[in-house]
Amino acid sequence: MPDPVSPEEAARHREKMQARKAVQDAEVASKTLEKGLLIVHTGAGKGKSTAAFGLMLRMIGHGRRVAVVQFIKGAWGTGERALFERFGDLVTWHSSGEGFTWEVQDKARDIAAARAGWARVLELLADPGLSLLVLDELNIALRYDYLEIAEVVAALTARRADLHVVVTGRNARPELIEAADLVTEMKAVKHHFAAGVRAQSGIEF
Amino acid sequence: MPDPVSPEEAARHREKMQARKAVQDAEVASKTLEKGLLIVHTGAGKGKSTAAFGLMLRMIGHGRRVAVVQFIKGAWGTGERALFERFGDLVTWHSSGEGFTWEVQDKARDIAAARAGWARVLELLADPGLSLLVLDELNIALRYDYLEIAEVVAALTARRADLHVVVTGRNARPELIEAADLVTEMKAVKHHFAAGVRAQSGIEF
Repeated sequence: MPDPVSPEEAARHREKMQARKAVQDAEVASKTLEKGLLIVHTGAGKGKSTAAFGLMLRMIGHGRRVAVVQFIKGAWGTGERALFERFGDLVTWHSSGEGFTWEVQDKARDIAAARAGWARVLELLADPGLSLLVLDELNIALRYDYLEIAEVVAALTARRADLHVVVTGRNARPELIEAADLVTEMKAVKHHFAAGVRAQSGIEF
Repeated sequence: MPDPVSPEEAARHREKMQARKAVQDAEVASKTLEKGLLIVHTGAGKGKSTAAFGLMLRMIGHGRRVAVVQFIKGAWGTGERALFERFGDLVTWHSSGEGFTWEVQDKARDIAAARAGWARVLELLADPGLSLLVLDELNIALRYDYLEIAEVVAALTARRADLHVVVTGRNARPELIEAADLVTEMKAVKHHFAAGVRAQSGIEF
């Protein structure tokens, strides 16, 4: 473990951190807007849906209502859904997809499922008591043109000012990124599947 | 909304998706290893801790025990901690840091907190009933050399074979990335702070 800190080093550290705190405080003071954010989690790496579900949990921790609409088969299974259901009325859940699209192999059914999900989104956008709406894997439905990007962006942009929305999925459309406030790309740096490790309970499902 | 699907298009889609499913099934079949993963969430973007807490939730959903040690001040507040405490014995929580390092301005105290956290990690690594251990913001403690990277990597590498570990924080050390099974970089594509939007309850805290 590291050596003890000398008085000189402690003083240097204190000075550096005070300067950093001053910058940090000024930055925080300069940001005054409050608004519902349109958040996008995209990229080929892991964590897109998982981080969205983590945000749901944080919002629930504040006693506020959240909803999720899963397009295509969700990254989360029935076990996790049951877990969220413990929070009762704070969580609304709609599963629109019936499985990943290459499992279903029926485009008309996929489109019908995406549209049913979108109809549910429009209802939830009109719910005045909702704080956070997660549109899980909506990017996949948009990528396959199961829903029209212009219609989706228009509806999300017209939402009420204090509603946060998270959209997940690879290959986010440029129109959605343009409209978003916060976009994070989950980038795969290293993946255990490449080393022959299988999907495991508690990690992938 | 998109036009209805013609029979020809439906057939093309089915064929394409069947081919994709075959590739997917072969890939899944080729992966046979099961092992506890060393997972790293790094990068300057959002979602590193949030995705780790999402994984905890998933693991809890399977009825398995998880633990988190927060180095430096955690990304999650007391509200979220209280939420996890609803799950009783399934969750063990240790907060090691007393605040971000530029708030504390006392290097010796920071080092002591990091070491106390690491001592707790060594205990948890020896707990045979644990399925997932989250080391939140450990990368920050390693970056400031509050803990020795060689000692940390050795202990994590020597863990029992079925224990999953998630390490979060910017600037992951190359030695840790080398030792990891799964590394995701959360990359900031677009951030609302740049547009003057402040940190808001339910999103940042």
